[in-house]
Amino acid sequence: MEPLKIGIVGLGTVGGGVVKLLEKNKNLICQRAGRDILITAVCAHSKDKDRGFDVNVYEWFDNPLDLVKHENVDVVLELVGGADGIAYDLIKEAISQKKPIITANKALLATHGYEIAEIADKANVPVFYEAAVAGGIPIVKTIREGLAGNGIKEIYGILNGTSNYILSEMTKTKRAFDDVLKDAQEKGYAEADPTFDIDGTDAAHKLAILSTIVFRTKPNLHNIYTKGISEIKAKDIDFAKTLGYEIKLIAKAFSSGDTLGQSVTPCLIPQSHPLSSINDVLNAVLFEGDFVKYSLSVGYGAGEGPTASAVVADVIDSALGIYRPVFGVNTAELKDAKRVAESENMCRFYMRLPVLDKPGVIAEVASILKDEDVSIESMLQHGHDPGQSVSVVMTTHETAAANIYNAIEKISTLRFMTSEPCLIQIEDLTS
Amino acid sequence: MEPLKIGIVGLGTVGGGVVKLLEKNKNLICQRAGRDILITAVCAHSKDKDRGFDVNVYEWFDNPLDLVKHENVDVVLELVGGADGIAYDLIKEAISQKKPIITANKALLATHGYEIAEIADKANVPVFYEAAVAGGIPIVKTIREGLAGNGIKEIYGILNGTSNYILSEMTKTKRAFDDVLKDAQEKGYAEADPTFDIDGTDAAHKLAILSTIVFRTKPNLHNIYTKGISEIKAKDIDFAKTLGYEIKLIAKAFSSGDTLGQSVTPCLIPQSHPLSSINDVLNAVLFEGDFVKYSLSVGYGAGEGPTASAVVADVIDSALGIYRPVFGVNTAELKDAKRVAESENMCRFYMRLPVLDKPGVIAEVASILKDEDVSIESMLQHGHDPGQSVSVVMTTHETAAANIYNAIEKISTLRFMTSEPCLIQIEDLTS
Repeated sequence: MEPLKIGIVGLGTVGGGVVKLLEKNKNLICQRAGRDILITAVCAHSKDKDRGFDVNVYEWFDNPLDLVKHENVDVVLELVGGADGIAYDLIKEAISQKKPIITANKALLATHGYEIAEIADKANVPVFYEAAVAGGIPIVKTIREGLAGNGIKEIYGILNGTSNYILSEMTKTKRAFDDVLKDAQEKGYAEADPTFDIDGTDAAHKLAILSTIVFRTKPNLHNIYTKGISEIKAKDIDFAKTLGYEIKLIAKAFSSGDTLGQSVTPCLIPQSHPLSSINDVLNAVLFEGDFVKYSLSVGYGAGEGPTASAVVADVIDSALGIYRPVFGVNTAELKDAKRVAESENMCRFYMRLPVLDKPGVIAEVASILKDEDVSIESMLQHGHDPGQSVSVVMTTHETAAANIYNAIEKISTLRFMTSEPCLIQIEDLTS
Repeated sequence: MEPLKIGIVGLGTVGGGVVKLLEKNKNLICQRAGRDILITAVCAHSKDKDRGFDVNVYEWFDNPLDLVKHENVDVVLELVGGADGIAYDLIKEAISQKKPIITANKALLATHGYEIAEIADKANVPVFYEAAVAGGIPIVKTIREGLAGNGIKEIYGILNGTSNYILSEMTKTKRAFDDVLKDAQEKGYAEADPTFDIDGTDAAHKLAILSTIVFRTKPNLHNIYTKGISEIKAKDIDFAKTLGYEIKLIAKAFSSGDTLGQSVTPCLIPQSHPLSSINDVLNAVLFEGDFVKYSLSVGYGAGEGPTASAVVADVIDSALGIYRPVFGVNTAELKDAKRVAESENMCRFYMRLPVLDKPGVIAEVASILKDEDVSIESMLQHGHDPGQSVSVVMTTHETAAANIYNAIEKISTLRFMTSEPCLIQIEDLTS
């Protein structure tokens, strides 16, 4: 059989990892692909950068669109990233050239996934994207193929390694967020601009893709309630522990009738739950299917090795000529999902109120909660220091999110508040 | 596109589950398959048995080979089981008819897998068998496809739900093996004849299949050192706990040069290891790839729902016309693996010696261990009851298995032994 000729656009961490993996495990990979796999063309910003391998053995392109069109390229690896710009252009060009695409670009799929899928499905061109979600966990294959027959009500997990590392480190060392973030950047676990990782955007991109496959709905980032971890303090992690919880950034999607609830938000989860022990830069995805029941997958979500592993799995699939619609079903079957209104979202909450330690404080807070129909489950005051600032921690019974937001707004204006209150959802995850 | 017409041989727990799943999630499944899926023919022992669905809507065959040959059958589901006999015959017939096969038959693949793969690969007929190993975990897809680019040194896990349930229950309730087994049979977690589950054979079948895919070696049951759980006593679980371990039936394969070590055996594993918290009928598989690093999958390994889920995933793949060699690479690439000699296997051991509580006992035991070059790591005597039988528990440093077997044989003949000694491997699993 003819060798498969691949062109790689983007030779950063991911692209570089793919070149190294294709070299190191060439024999194994070609056996599984049933044919030889050749990198024939590459394209990146700078040809001269030291990447730990020799780019001169491949044909170099300055313009990615030229690479896509080149006759010596059967399959295009888009490893540039970014929701728009060159990644978007070259994927569309590859589809029009009927060349299979392999991408790690979650931002693009979460943003333009429907449009891309529509033209790719129409042209019968496969778009592979295992590397876009939790690279080290073959989760796209698992839900789009391995458990494809199952009706799934809920899927949730830890989808961002950087924020999971930061929360784990804060838990382990009791250091402050900023301090641990700096440390993570030095170790290469967080990027120079870590915004998307710590504000929940990266996890939301991934969740949008998983939701689309699982629930057969159009990807829609705007329907995901997204909150990051930068307001979490070491003391919140400590209080959570006292209450029997760990704090994790949880991405979650659940369907109920024709509505789809999707959120990425820090949560208190029970210490007994398997996700509570997923630490450092590990990712994990968990769901219940109507036939398979419980399913949990754990692995590294990012980094050169795991991401390259996912890209190369897709290279093998494309070498075997495997074709499936982008999101597992034809785009015509993807429905618009109604967002579950935030106000209807029922859950329990953790509140930390920094207040002056003086009589009457609890009474005022309790009165506001009563007015907003929020019922207190437990309360603890940390320390006793009359006239000084102390932390009052409360957990609520299940309540409409809108009510607690109203309450916390009123509470934050009370004159005895010494700084901003902290509000975190409690997720008593079902399995 | 034409509907896919499937014929099902075997309507027991698995076959029945498949019929139910194809009915319940028909819309979802056909969307993912890109075409309609019709059950056109069925075959089982008795037509009249109450199965919770109406078999009369499908064409009934008394002879499975007639079903295979029938023009209204595109794909054959072999859900009869058994290493030989009708399952073997009908799979070979289906291959000669160029009809894709979907099977849940681990015994057959572990025993005749190489022969089946050889003729199937030559004929370009796909054989799907996701349901053969840990049904609820799409582990075949994960290692054959999702992580296909990785070099893997070691794979291990809990592959038998029945024995895991028994060990978990013994741990939780401190009841005896026989008592818990009876209970498991009443609950439907163990079969009337539970031999293959509790003696390690079932897990060995599954391990043989996983090893073949991961290490590209011919499946060879005889190369798997297999030991069951029936000799484990509640007190061993208790002692293990005191030492910081849980007892699990661990299936493990590792390659080293041109040798392949494979074993299914009860092991003491550290309480801090993720597998130690996999309880009840759950299965789990863990391995390290050279690029993906750590990978862990957890789910239900058996039962109607999880197994049907795996079979239906294969039905969808076959509807999409997906083809891969049976074991991921052409059979010509599968090598004979040299078995790691038991005597060369280096590991630590737990020993429980039921002895008369009298002076000099430890000295005699220690002397035998010294002669066999076995070094003691720790020792504890449970209870003190002069002249009566007590348990002496020892753990060893790393030692050649052959030496400890020699030692235990000599020890068991000592006159102060009150019953058979118990020897269990300690596995300080690497990840």
